[in-house]
Amino acid sequence: MTDPRREFSIIERYFAGLITTTSSAILLGPGDDCGIFSVPAGQEVCISTDTLTAGVHFPLGAAPAVVAHRALVANLSDLSAMGACPLTCTLALTLDAQSSTDIWLAPFADHLRELIDQYAIPLIGGNLSSGPLSLTFTVLGTVPAGQALRRDGAQLGDDVYITGHLGNAAGGLAQLQADGSRSSMLLDRYQHPTPRLATAMALRGLATAAIDISDGLLADLDHVAARSEVGIEIALEQLPLSAALLENFDLVRCREFALAGGDDYELGFTAGIAQRQSVAAVALATQVEITRIGRVVVGGGVQVFDTTGQPVPVARRGYAHF
Amino acid sequence: MTDPRREFSIIERYFAGLITTTSSAILLGPGDDCGIFSVPAGQEVCISTDTLTAGVHFPLGAAPAVVAHRALVANLSDLSAMGACPLTCTLALTLDAQSSTDIWLAPFADHLRELIDQYAIPLIGGNLSSGPLSLTFTVLGTVPAGQALRRDGAQLGDDVYITGHLGNAAGGLAQLQADGSRSSMLLDRYQHPTPRLATAMALRGLATAAIDISDGLLADLDHVAARSEVGIEIALEQLPLSAALLENFDLVRCREFALAGGDDYELGFTAGIAQRQSVAAVALATQVEITRIGRVVVGGGVQVFDTTGQPVPVARRGYAHF
Repeated sequence: MTDPRREFSIIERYFAGLITTTSSAILLGPGDDCGIFSVPAGQEVCISTDTLTAGVHFPLGAAPAVVAHRALVANLSDLSAMGACPLTCTLALTLDAQSSTDIWLAPFADHLRELIDQYAIPLIGGNLSSGPLSLTFTVLGTVPAGQALRRDGAQLGDDVYITGHLGNAAGGLAQLQADGSRSSMLLDRYQHPTPRLATAMALRGLATAAIDISDGLLADLDHVAARSEVGIEIALEQLPLSAALLENFDLVRCREFALAGGDDYELGFTAGIAQRQSVAAVALATQVEITRIGRVVVGGGVQVFDTTGQPVPVARRGYAHF
Repeated sequence: MTDPRREFSIIERYFAGLITTTSSAILLGPGDDCGIFSVPAGQEVCISTDTLTAGVHFPLGAAPAVVAHRALVANLSDLSAMGACPLTCTLALTLDAQSSTDIWLAPFADHLRELIDQYAIPLIGGNLSSGPLSLTFTVLGTVPAGQALRRDGAQLGDDVYITGHLGNAAGGLAQLQADGSRSSMLLDRYQHPTPRLATAMALRGLATAAIDISDGLLADLDHVAARSEVGIEIALEQLPLSAALLENFDLVRCREFALAGGDDYELGFTAGIAQRQSVAAVALATQVEITRIGRVVVGGGVQVFDTTGQPVPVARRGYAHF
């Protein structure tokens, strides 16, 4: 705190390389009062911001690369939920004594650079300060005017779909908390989730509503139901569960993870019945499994039904932020 | 933390009114995975982000309205430093037990609403989480293509100007720390700074470089000198000091505050000698004093000279973030 140059030396050493000049939209990167970007004609801009705090959203002592991954992907997943194409991002990083060291910053910045390259979302600016460790990414993406996948477009009779598998991240977290598991496919899904950007972009014009599954399937689909003023029915046996999850937990627990676990960052969406072949084509083209799990009905909220058509009572509906 | 609806009820109760629909650029406000905005043709977007943490950037127990004011204005000031017109903002708010109460949230949200209306910068989205109290605003503004006031445009021979008075905020903070002063014009400048948005927009095409004075005159002009690859000379006796500052502190202390105090959020800028009349016209039109305090020279860094032409040694150059 005594060296006025320290902030600038950390930025120079670890973060200067995170602004890539490969994007023609970035007109001015970090180092001025603001960054400057341009937006192509006919495009709208989607924006989302999310904070992760040590001890709240990730354990104190979490691996820096995992922190970087989960923080940026949580935000990229919000872009995917709109069908947006990544444009740029900012990072407000608050570092404590432990994280303002090379041991923490080097792997954090290295992994962040990989993600920024992989998802083509150059860092246009940021803020570095000292305090309790936390990260706030703000991400921006573009969609053709009027084509964003919003939460409020679900129509009566629509199918309800989910990408990938549900519950893997919650299963991985449960393993970590139970036995300190250091490696498994499930843990990897928790620590290194994948935003479904390409699939979401391909669903523009097909999906009527979309949301990313960050808090848990029921909690998130509740938002779609509320904003669209409809009800959603889910078929319990249709929930896509991975072989790895089923091998490690009994079926009841797997379904609990799938319904309320959160952290999967899969995409939930609705689409008209007439679009079933087109949705299948998107799955094939973007190499992501897409499973039909329910339908949009008259009413409100989300209800789960078993194979006999009986409603299934569900206790925990998702992660509470606050 | 046990009620999953608590986050939404806080947002609904305190923050739902902060998205104004008066801006045609805001296509979708809070409540979806992202907000959506449009950018008028021929405009570029400036973006800046800044975190304020309790106990670091403001005292634990600071008045919520002061916290809201200083956090948003610090960011608006970055827009002003580019000559940008406010477009929209996001707020990532992390609340501790004390601040997640009506006593804290009501005056915070009330004052934020006033500022959002005053500066026409509707809140397009945000994030609410629990943890150590901190705020991260990300602000966006527009400039006509190519007309942003950057730090790197200062030219040899340019004049150096400052808006308003320097050192008031530092004087107010010193009073607060010395005697717990609860009201004075100086303290008000610290607690309720004014971003120079209108003046900055009027300086497009006139100013060659600009920066806002947040860390201290010398520290901030250092950035202009470095990015423009020039030196800057400041005349000590030209520093604009308010009557209130001079009444409360001796001249040496006033000048220390003015050179290194920070928090004034005045605008420092450079402009060619041929523009002196135009700069004076901007001061008149936007009702803000503008004072010529120095010039751009060959070399690097910022040097201060007294009336005899002798360089003045300056110990503390500005606020260190880290």
